[in-house]
Amino acid sequence: MIFEHATISIASGRETEFESAFTAEAPPLFDRAEGCHGVELRRCIEDPGRYTLIVRWDSVEAHMVGFRESPLFGQWRALVSDYFAAAPVVEHYSVVG
Amino acid sequence: MIFEHATISIASGRETEFESAFTAEAPPLFDRAEGCHGVELRRCIEDPGRYTLIVRWDSVEAHMVGFRESPLFGQWRALVSDYFAAAPVVEHYSVVG
Repeated sequence: MIFEHATISIASGRETEFESAFTAEAPPLFDRAEGCHGVELRRCIEDPGRYTLIVRWDSVEAHMVGFRESPLFGQWRALVSDYFAAAPVVEHYSVVG
Repeated sequence: MIFEHATISIASGRETEFESAFTAEAPPLFDRAEGCHGVELRRCIEDPGRYTLIVRWDSVEAHMVGFRESPLFGQWRALVSDYFAAAPVVEHYSVVG
């Protein structure tokens, strides 16, 4: 099990719309992704236009191949990309211990 | 409830020592911190010298005042700061939805 951490910067003033779109549609979308075990969106308190999306996946491949090459990735980007101020920065993490 | 996300860069070649020190002593140390509800260390797969420490706190103040002004903060830094390649970058996040 690994974690995707995606840093997402949202266009100024569009944070509420982004959060509403995410909350309404993202959890069921990621629920349908194979090898996905949950999604959470966290907003930075010091820089409220910046968010970290955290997604649990079976593996990096489940995210970067399975999900990104599925129709769900297009649905995800159609849901949220209009709000992005820049391309998300995506990294993967394994848990220590 | 909020999350501290601390980005920690470890001196090259000292990752295993850092992980061992963390795993042995950090969880019980944070267990003793008032307003703390768990700590997790995640290692970046794309950049294995970089880690994200994630700590759940009651509030930003529980971390930045309660913990940082307690003797536990000195114990924490004594445990791990020798392995740091740079000062950690600390941010706080609230969960959306």
